[in-house]
Amino acid sequence: MTSRLRLTVSYDGAGFRGFAAQPGQRTVAGELAGAIATVVGHRVELVCAGRTDAGVHAKGQVVHVDVREGVDSARLVRSVNTLLKPSIVVRSAEVAPAGFDARRSARARRYRYLILEDQTPDPLLAPLSWHVPGPLDLRAMASAADALLGEHDFRAFCRRVPGTEPGTPIPRRVLDARFAEVPVRPGELGPGGRLLRFDIEATSFCHQMVRSLVGTLVEVGRGRRRASDVNWMLQSGDRSRVGGVIAPPQGLCLLEVDYGG
Amino acid sequence: MTSRLRLTVSYDGAGFRGFAAQPGQRTVAGELAGAIATVVGHRVELVCAGRTDAGVHAKGQVVHVDVREGVDSARLVRSVNTLLKPSIVVRSAEVAPAGFDARRSARARRYRYLILEDQTPDPLLAPLSWHVPGPLDLRAMASAADALLGEHDFRAFCRRVPGTEPGTPIPRRVLDARFAEVPVRPGELGPGGRLLRFDIEATSFCHQMVRSLVGTLVEVGRGRRRASDVNWMLQSGDRSRVGGVIAPPQGLCLLEVDYGG
Repeated sequence: MTSRLRLTVSYDGAGFRGFAAQPGQRTVAGELAGAIATVVGHRVELVCAGRTDAGVHAKGQVVHVDVREGVDSARLVRSVNTLLKPSIVVRSAEVAPAGFDARRSARARRYRYLILEDQTPDPLLAPLSWHVPGPLDLRAMASAADALLGEHDFRAFCRRVPGTEPGTPIPRRVLDARFAEVPVRPGELGPGGRLLRFDIEATSFCHQMVRSLVGTLVEVGRGRRRASDVNWMLQSGDRSRVGGVIAPPQGLCLLEVDYGG
Repeated sequence: MTSRLRLTVSYDGAGFRGFAAQPGQRTVAGELAGAIATVVGHRVELVCAGRTDAGVHAKGQVVHVDVREGVDSARLVRSVNTLLKPSIVVRSAEVAPAGFDARRSARARRYRYLILEDQTPDPLLAPLSWHVPGPLDLRAMASAADALLGEHDFRAFCRRVPGTEPGTPIPRRVLDARFAEVPVRPGELGPGGRLLRFDIEATSFCHQMVRSLVGTLVEVGRGRRRASDVNWMLQSGDRSRVGGVIAPPQGLCLLEVDYGG
């Protein structure tokens, strides 16, 4: 008999080849499954809510894992964290409700992307943000982000799903997409420098969707594209029109997963 | 003929054996002097306002350097940053006022120490903070910090200055010393978790002073010492009474240097 645990996991994506286990690569799932197996005494498989790419961080990734009955979840958390901290930390573990699946039960995922708009980079923000010298037209970026709300075919902003025909639509529903300025101490950034965050929530995401969107939105902010371009990119479904500007992974973080209730 | 430049420098202390140049070690001064020499075409020596230890960060370290006349400081900044970013970044460079010395002209230095009080560590805050499971009595810590204000002999909280007799007083004037809670998004930390910052400004600091003070203040917060103990530690001047709790380097950051005016 096994019981299914639901884990909430944070990690620093630097130093991992993404979440999903890959033979011979240091991945979050590989490290986590290895540590859990060591503690519970048998092999385990992990299913996560959002498969983050190499270098992408997580505050509230959700994972399910089936373990032999009788495992003390609080002790499991302590033991796994002793093995993996500080780069991977299990924040909580509990017995999952009946029928729970970390991927299929999720109603929505929320990601955050940090952009440092400043003349000079910042060594302490560099591991967590994309440095863009600017200036960025935040109003135009916000206007372009508005166009993402609702259900659209995000094919132009995604890698093709393996095993599907070219041109297969990739419909996704965006629930929230907004920019905000993160308050920082006066003098902490250069003159006119700003730390911007882009928060986006959708029922689900396709591969590289947030980074493709942010890459395009920053092009809008730089004045290299118009805010209205985002509309026809969505309508065209043509990835070549997006122009291949993909925001770097270290600015992205999976914030939380919504399971309703 | 040379001209003296004043540089404001940020760095991520991880990966450096501190600021001061040491043969065969990767240090901030070593990397920075090497990059400047490459750009200006002659060897240079650096003098800094605060010699940070291995692993300690800086937002606003100030450095002076004498370079041949005619060096374009804006271009120097760009070239040096291209060589060293993102771990070291020169935020600004300007011709220094007559008689300026980054160390001797400084009126005060301000440091910040970050403490994550939470049941579990945080992978993204780990490089910038000291994780303390808590609970911490913040009121007792604030009260103990008050005792630091003004001029005291900080011998109990410092390593002996090389070349001085044991028992030589180390008087320092503390201008500000306070704890505050850093606002974080709801749900970002565990239940009851807090991110605390300790800001301290003094005319100057002795070696490991901030980390020794924070180590002791956290002992007060944990209830292992009383807030009033800090008074007799200062009066006794006896380092052995401090008990050797030295806060780890990654929580510490040199925020800024005050030159008056």
